[in-house]
Amino acid sequence: MTAEELSQIIYRKRSYLCVGLDTDIRKIPSHLLSEPDPVFAFNRAIIDATAPYAVAYKPNIAFYEAMGPRGWESLQKTIDYIPADCFTIADAKRGDIGNTSSLYARTFFDPSAAGLNFDSVTVAPYMGRDSVVPFLEYPGKWVILLALTSNAGSADFQRQPVGERELYEVVMETAQTWATPDQLMFVVGATQTEQLARIREIAPDHFLLVPGVGAQGGSLADVSRIGLNSRGGLLVNASRSILYASAGSDFAERAAAEAQALQAEMASYL
Amino acid sequence: MTAEELSQIIYRKRSYLCVGLDTDIRKIPSHLLSEPDPVFAFNRAIIDATAPYAVAYKPNIAFYEAMGPRGWESLQKTIDYIPADCFTIADAKRGDIGNTSSLYARTFFDPSAAGLNFDSVTVAPYMGRDSVVPFLEYPGKWVILLALTSNAGSADFQRQPVGERELYEVVMETAQTWATPDQLMFVVGATQTEQLARIREIAPDHFLLVPGVGAQGGSLADVSRIGLNSRGGLLVNASRSILYASAGSDFAERAAAEAQALQAEMASYL
Repeated sequence: MTAEELSQIIYRKRSYLCVGLDTDIRKIPSHLLSEPDPVFAFNRAIIDATAPYAVAYKPNIAFYEAMGPRGWESLQKTIDYIPADCFTIADAKRGDIGNTSSLYARTFFDPSAAGLNFDSVTVAPYMGRDSVVPFLEYPGKWVILLALTSNAGSADFQRQPVGERELYEVVMETAQTWATPDQLMFVVGATQTEQLARIREIAPDHFLLVPGVGAQGGSLADVSRIGLNSRGGLLVNASRSILYASAGSDFAERAAAEAQALQAEMASYL
Repeated sequence: MTAEELSQIIYRKRSYLCVGLDTDIRKIPSHLLSEPDPVFAFNRAIIDATAPYAVAYKPNIAFYEAMGPRGWESLQKTIDYIPADCFTIADAKRGDIGNTSSLYARTFFDPSAAGLNFDSVTVAPYMGRDSVVPFLEYPGKWVILLALTSNAGSADFQRQPVGERELYEVVMETAQTWATPDQLMFVVGATQTEQLARIREIAPDHFLLVPGVGAQGGSLADVSRIGLNSRGGLLVNASRSILYASAGSDFAERAAAEAQALQAEMASYL
């Protein structure tokens, strides 16, 4: 998906909501456990319920890996099921030496490899340029690079001073020499609103993937006020607050209501 | 496996060789492609051939993921097949917010989750403390944290100056406040011999996992001279130079010869 297509979807749906498909089989409604593939059954219902309000879906790969081979099958079915007018993110936080990153890129971008055809993958920057560029070799696919994450540990290294700057700023500036804003997004936690203005200075044109609204406590109003740009430029993720809005048979309706509330708030900011 | 057990195996086998099971189905001898599971058939032959000379095996998870669900099945069979007196490393370079890193830890350490029971997993440090500590909650299991990697991109961020130090030094010092040398190793590329003396100052007691000997050009003599400590303290990885020593029906014999040559050189340094 191109940046222009993504931007059009955002303005058409009046939403920059990304639904995080962090599907934990230990948390899904018990009546689904008799389905042949409970994780896919849950995801399908969540997608059906939230697709009018969401522009992107982001399965965190850890949740599927933790189930072994059948988890990968649930992931394949889920990706195939997501409507074509939604952007898909493999939240995998991969990164390795060049020839190995090439394999991770194949895994998530080339359906003939692992049966997956994501639009984007999250990548960890620690290993530098040659760990990132193999993901940029697929036309229409995106790297979403970790910059300043939403967790407490983000202070340990990402905010270390490097000369006059902090490490995450060096990461963002360096990565812009590798790719254009039409191939590269950054992960910025919603809990980092104090730094968000600085981040928009460094990367005025980039899309930012913003987790941390909802269960992690970030403010959608603050993120939107500072983060929106002329093409939208935000994908704000919510996972647990939507997926587990109810543990009962009404889980999909409650998920739809949560997603709709976020979409309505987003529409007011766009 | 405890540090003492690993050390005993090193001195008994007179080896600190780790064989990297970076098994690429496009590179294995063609006569194996008619096997029901060609990747496992190849790995089994490599393990049989090299086990007398190796103390550790390190599948890089990218190679298995790139094959989808059947790749995970090959990985499960491979791990089950590795002899009990060899240390196993999931080279996955994972790292995510705490509750997600817990799932990655389950994936690789808890056989009831994904059918895998590795001794250790490689972890990327960028997201800080809460992305690493969930891997430390399994008794007898290890975190192998990326410190200074073997690739060209290691210069981009790992060697950035942070005050008087470089980022990788800050990572190594900070991580030592999270775990003892009996749970924590560091990845240090064999191509980084100029920094290896400094690394041994920072972490005199830790095991170091050293990739980059062989295809990537690092020197075993230099790494061993600077890196060995009183309990051995090194795991030196070779992948392509062993796995693909021959593309013919003699691949296992040639792999054994490569491994034996490395073991003999290691014995001379121990």
